[in-house]
Amino acid sequence: MSRPLNDHDAIRTQLMDAAEDMVRARGAINLSLSEVAAACGMSQSSFYRYFASKEAFFEAIAGRWFEELNQIMEEVVASDLPPREKLYEFFARRVAIKRARFEADPVLFKANMDLGEEHWEVIRGYVDLADHYMAVILGEAMAEGYFPGYDLDHVVSLTNLIVQPFCNPFVMMDMIRTATPENLRIVINTLFDGLVARQTAVADGANVTPLRAIS
Amino acid sequence: MSRPLNDHDAIRTQLMDAAEDMVRARGAINLSLSEVAAACGMSQSSFYRYFASKEAFFEAIAGRWFEELNQIMEEVVASDLPPREKLYEFFARRVAIKRARFEADPVLFKANMDLGEEHWEVIRGYVDLADHYMAVILGEAMAEGYFPGYDLDHVVSLTNLIVQPFCNPFVMMDMIRTATPENLRIVINTLFDGLVARQTAVADGANVTPLRAIS
Repeated sequence: MSRPLNDHDAIRTQLMDAAEDMVRARGAINLSLSEVAAACGMSQSSFYRYFASKEAFFEAIAGRWFEELNQIMEEVVASDLPPREKLYEFFARRVAIKRARFEADPVLFKANMDLGEEHWEVIRGYVDLADHYMAVILGEAMAEGYFPGYDLDHVVSLTNLIVQPFCNPFVMMDMIRTATPENLRIVINTLFDGLVARQTAVADGANVTPLRAIS
Repeated sequence: MSRPLNDHDAIRTQLMDAAEDMVRARGAINLSLSEVAAACGMSQSSFYRYFASKEAFFEAIAGRWFEELNQIMEEVVASDLPPREKLYEFFARRVAIKRARFEADPVLFKANMDLGEEHWEVIRGYVDLADHYMAVILGEAMAEGYFPGYDLDHVVSLTNLIVQPFCNPFVMMDMIRTATPENLRIVINTLFDGLVARQTAVADGANVTPLRAIS
């Protein structure tokens, strides 16, 4: 088998592609590095010239998966959109990519999600990074007077609760018909217009005149 | 093995309990009726005296799982609470039971969820029933002026999107720390206060003065 031995990155890519083929064909469980190496015509000890450890290999695979998604988050956060639009773009642009990946190859998508669950210690950093960027956007919204009565951590938790079908890939797959960009916009608008501390209502559990009836 | 041969229902219960033990021990995949029968000291042909088919057996197991949950839905819908409180109780009371079942035996809970995924044709009717009851409550809310500009089907879809961590057991398990009764109340309030059609905002994508700034 011919391979560009002088190109370290090309071989790394080739090994990751081979792993992807195996995950697609057999699922995520018990992916074997020696089989990945063999598929590229190399021994397991040669494999370690390209990835220092099994963990480094999965980190590189995850890095490839998240590269475009992270770039979107950075761009959206750095943009001068108003916070409401930023939050919409933050989810809409990434869910569009995830959905396209799912539709292009549902089996591979599902297997990659299982791979992520199996290597949660690698994925966790990406999830924390997304929470960090989301907190930046929600903090900007709070500086403009949104979500009065709530602290930032709570707003981050509440936002994560209501946007699950637009960020959790397992829920996205289940709700592919209703988790549309139009409905995401409505959910974000509902959050921005409706998340206002109503301490009396929480305390006594009574119904309260809706805000719009007052306006 | 002694069994109350004169008690048809008791033997049905015994067979369902045996199935539950097997699902707990080995997961939901490929549950074998002959093994369930053997665990209760009977042949597979005797088994069919108690359940007409494999499908009837799974329907009975699902019926047992959903009995209390369906009763809650009926009670809440029939109550004279205001719609906002009804919707809160509709989710809060059922998620409390699901959470208690999960915490009592996480392995069994997860295995039962997998069993449900495997027999989705049985579960589907229960999910549709829950949607029906939810639509009744949301329709009452609309009759009081909530969710202006939306039709009932759309409000049902949107509600399902934002309450996933409080009704989808897989999401509930993932978000057990933040899917609290307090946060459910906030999510329901956010829906009731914030879901108002904002056609200009949707059309031009511009930021819009929040409603509370007008009030």
